[in-house]
Amino acid sequence: MDALVPFAPDRPKTRLADVLSPAERRGFADAMLSDVLGALRTADFSPTLLTTEPVERDAAQTVDDRPLTEAVNAALADRRPDPDRPVCVVMADLALATPRSLSRLRASGDVVVAPGRGGGTNALAVRHPDFRVDYHGASYLDHLRAARAVGASVREVDSHRLATDVDERADLAELLLHGDGAARDWLVDAGFELDATDGRVGVRRSGSN
Amino acid sequence: MDALVPFAPDRPKTRLADVLSPAERRGFADAMLSDVLGALRTADFSPTLLTTEPVERDAAQTVDDRPLTEAVNAALADRRPDPDRPVCVVMADLALATPRSLSRLRASGDVVVAPGRGGGTNALAVRHPDFRVDYHGASYLDHLRAARAVGASVREVDSHRLATDVDERADLAELLLHGDGAARDWLVDAGFELDATDGRVGVRRSGSN
Repeated sequence: MDALVPFAPDRPKTRLADVLSPAERRGFADAMLSDVLGALRTADFSPTLLTTEPVERDAAQTVDDRPLTEAVNAALADRRPDPDRPVCVVMADLALATPRSLSRLRASGDVVVAPGRGGGTNALAVRHPDFRVDYHGASYLDHLRAARAVGASVREVDSHRLATDVDERADLAELLLHGDGAARDWLVDAGFELDATDGRVGVRRSGSN
Repeated sequence: MDALVPFAPDRPKTRLADVLSPAERRGFADAMLSDVLGALRTADFSPTLLTTEPVERDAAQTVDDRPLTEAVNAALADRRPDPDRPVCVVMADLALATPRSLSRLRASGDVVVAPGRGGGTNALAVRHPDFRVDYHGASYLDHLRAARAVGASVREVDSHRLATDVDERADLAELLLHGDGAARDWLVDAGFELDATDGRVGVRRSGSN
């Protein structure tokens, strides 16, 4: 199954600016992308990077420097997904995604959607040629409406792993708790560890490293 | 399948004190409990409230005023779960839980665990007589260790709905986005609505109501 993985190497993870330098954010985003591509391949997806500029990666690439929504919709229009040729859209920062969780996108439905925490849309499987995305605001609700508008059936994937896009400091704790790939290793090497002094577990960073 | 639902009516939802008054927190916690009990019953669980004091509810009750960990462990010791008589422990603030998501606790495994965001343990199915809980700190990791220590097999339930205990302001957005029961109605009646002006969708509360 084809899977588009949008990636913007020029402006990675700005909401982690309070804990990571620009160079670190690039390194961390690269590690997350490696995990996502690896999990997709293990689950027999064929990933294509939908990237704002060419990157050095052993992966098929489509370069499109437009904003996310426009670039994804151009790719969907180009590929015309149908029930026999679904197209997935999987975010590059789903560092907790496993082959098993991603395989749940194969569930039946014209549009299979894995909501992200905070109303986002972290992964989609599209089997309807007329469905289009809109990633602004509460995109999960917008995508339910968009599917209804074109008569597409919708299935929700209820997954904590797919709901956890790694955007903010609190998300790093999820990665330390549940991750086992390159991104988790990157965090550990950078000195991050769990901090269980508060209600929910957070992260702290050691001074060295 | 038996399901214990721990509930502390005397000190509900203190981490929502910045957005809800004490009386409101009690009303909101009651609504969430109604949703959890309803979803459990629809999914053919037999819920028992494990409550710190008697409450007026049409549900079986075990009153135990000790802290959560001690009370749950006393109930597990009393019931001696085994593969034919599993005992579930389901938190009372899982207002997004659906019969379908709760049914995933029926998966095979001596200990089936649904992690909560931030390292907590939001739901368990226990089929091993010697497994004991410890809800302090990163209880998810502690429960993995505790299962290993008694030779119990572990299965993880990867569910955003079960991972979302409603503890903090940001969790209210999840309930407005994905809920459809009494707790969501309570929030809407109290004037809460989605606020999509930030990166992730949050909530705001109108002045009236």
